[in-house]
Amino acid sequence: MSDQQAGGQDRTAATETTDGGIEELSGDREYRQGAVDLLGILAYGELTAFERLAEDGRLAPSLADKVHMATLASQQIEHFGRVKDRLATFGVDVMVAMQPFHVPFNTFHDYTKPKDWLEGLVKAFVGDGFANDFYREVAAFVDPETRTLVHEVLSDESHADYVVQKVRNAIDADRKVAGRLALWGRRLVGEALSQAQRVAAERDALTSLLTGTVDRPGMDLAAISRMFSRLVETHTQRMAKLGLQA
Amino acid sequence: MSDQQAGGQDRTAATETTDGGIEELSGDREYRQGAVDLLGILAYGELTAFERLAEDGRLAPSLADKVHMATLASQQIEHFGRVKDRLATFGVDVMVAMQPFHVPFNTFHDYTKPKDWLEGLVKAFVGDGFANDFYREVAAFVDPETRTLVHEVLSDESHADYVVQKVRNAIDADRKVAGRLALWGRRLVGEALSQAQRVAAERDALTSLLTGTVDRPGMDLAAISRMFSRLVETHTQRMAKLGLQA
Repeated sequence: MSDQQAGGQDRTAATETTDGGIEELSGDREYRQGAVDLLGILAYGELTAFERLAEDGRLAPSLADKVHMATLASQQIEHFGRVKDRLATFGVDVMVAMQPFHVPFNTFHDYTKPKDWLEGLVKAFVGDGFANDFYREVAAFVDPETRTLVHEVLSDESHADYVVQKVRNAIDADRKVAGRLALWGRRLVGEALSQAQRVAAERDALTSLLTGTVDRPGMDLAAISRMFSRLVETHTQRMAKLGLQA
Repeated sequence: MSDQQAGGQDRTAATETTDGGIEELSGDREYRQGAVDLLGILAYGELTAFERLAEDGRLAPSLADKVHMATLASQQIEHFGRVKDRLATFGVDVMVAMQPFHVPFNTFHDYTKPKDWLEGLVKAFVGDGFANDFYREVAAFVDPETRTLVHEVLSDESHADYVVQKVRNAIDADRKVAGRLALWGRRLVGEALSQAQRVAAERDALTSLLTGTVDRPGMDLAAISRMFSRLVETHTQRMAKLGLQA
């Protein structure tokens, strides 16, 4: 966690004097575009998560499970609204900000359609967990208000206990389930990384948030590699919580 | 509107002295069960509306339409939460309260699956509009707090302008659409009435909210018939707004 997080915080201290950190960003178009990209990813991610949770809810084994999924789905839209409002303060329409991320998200979801209720739960927990960790890493490099918003919309962990319990119960009832879901978890992360690479290649502004520019510090290659280690480590812990091998 | 609405309000005036009108209701078990039934219908109605709006959103012709449908869907869950909380003050679990209404709602939705995006919009506007008018009529006979809640969760008319505009545009583009959607609107109300009859036959407590009991005034047959006239009249106006013949 230490070095590059600290780097992010140093930068923050320097910008927090102005109002919400937007003013001075207009002087750095690429920087601003990076923040807009992060918000655009979040917005489209929330929207596709809504659709997926609503659809997975149809597979729910009980009405209580259905209510749980519907509640989670509607939280995504509440978050979507907040991200949209933040984008508006940057003068950017949420529809425009989301546009570059349609293809990677849609491809990810097309390649990772859950075959049943349990796969849907694991996808929501493991897939979103991995993605959210990454968004938090990127958020260390944007203005304080955007960073706070990102952390707030990602902080809702109410789903975790629910998924952990359901998946563990299913494994207890049938040990074979563990092997199948472990494979599924690996595939989810593989597909997520492959789409993340696509985004990184296409969105220079987003990438340079992480890597920095001449007059703004970012991560060097070693730091980026450490970030990936952190992501993988947290992913492994998350799988372990479910009783699955990463 | 006049007579039985006034009747409802007279009763209200008599009960509003106590705290939220729950205390004195416990003396009238059937009366209380009627209110619980109304809330149970609303809760299950919101839940199925969520599912339907989320599913219809998948047919949306644009991402902006999709966002609109997702926002509406998530409002249903917000309303569901409020109805659930109100039921809890009656000491009733929302799952239990919804139980008697699974079959009529599921049957209604099975018989009225929209074939396309426009049919989905008309269903949300005309079908829900009709149902909501009926719920408001029943709400005239429950305790003031429940009545206020019912009116609040039903008051969201933000959908109306959106649907009216989309349907009118579609009719302008192709006149044949009007005939097809007019038939669809009639079918929706027919199926809704048929399920409402089923509920009325099975839920005495709900029915007697409307008809009253020995020591509590309700509607006589003439008043009930006038209520249906009102429902049909408002339905006709709603269809006319869409440019459709009821």
